[in-house]
Amino acid sequence: MADILHRIGIKNSSIDKVYRVLTTREGLAGWWTTNTTGEGDQVGNIVIFRFGDKGGFDMKVTQLQAPNLVIWEVIDGPKEWIGTTIHFELKQEEDYVILLFQHLNWKEPVEFMYHCSTKWAIFLMSLKALVETGKGNPDPNDIRIDNWN
Amino acid sequence: MADILHRIGIKNSSIDKVYRVLTTREGLAGWWTTNTTGEGDQVGNIVIFRFGDKGGFDMKVTQLQAPNLVIWEVIDGPKEWIGTTIHFELKQEEDYVILLFQHLNWKEPVEFMYHCSTKWAIFLMSLKALVETGKGNPDPNDIRIDNWN
Repeated sequence: MADILHRIGIKNSSIDKVYRVLTTREGLAGWWTTNTTGEGDQVGNIVIFRFGDKGGFDMKVTQLQAPNLVIWEVIDGPKEWIGTTIHFELKQEEDYVILLFQHLNWKEPVEFMYHCSTKWAIFLMSLKALVETGKGNPDPNDIRIDNWN
Repeated sequence: MADILHRIGIKNSSIDKVYRVLTTREGLAGWWTTNTTGEGDQVGNIVIFRFGDKGGFDMKVTQLQAPNLVIWEVIDGPKEWIGTTIHFELKQEEDYVILLFQHLNWKEPVEFMYHCSTKWAIFLMSLKALVETGKGNPDPNDIRIDNWN
């Protein structure tokens, strides 16, 4: 098993505000992909993320502890993602809301995982920008990192 | 053990050029930290990276396969980094030089590792910008990600 881990800090915000961008369609569409369907504010909900003609991911919300924890299970998408879980943990430190991110239980550290690790960092920085400035960089206006996008 | 993995693609460049930014003082100072001492172009060399008043890392070059592979061992720095190894593997794909990055053998996935994972992504994007545009964002002009910088 292999895991992707990240940490960002969001300034001049609140845990409640960051929790909302992780659990509402509008919030998620503001930093990950504009093509987001569904609300992530109830356990059992499915949220559907699509990225142009490249497919995407269906996430089942499996755990919520407002406003500190959001866990999704990937129920459809690239085969390497299916069954993996995505965790967002929030806490306050000084003037920052700290977001600890985990994408857990990749079966193998395949090259696609290297790509996804970097791309998650970029999207989390988009989330940071969304909350701090009101404007993120969701797909299709995301920052490109390589030939896979 | 836990690992950090990343993948970036650099457009309109060459493997030789990217290999140089990984093995020369000038190249390394252009994307990681301006306070870089030593050349990384010989196995056994030590390259010293410092970040303002926050300390830094001493790296021993342990393997070179020009122009495709660079491996460093961390011989001094934060205790969590000592004994870990950093690998840069290069290959050409279409119009891109692909850089596969590994920071291997963290003893535990401590919170500092989450931070370093995100920060490595940001610095690798700085490397990409350096090669593609001539200008990276090395410390002290690096992009901040959280309250630890």
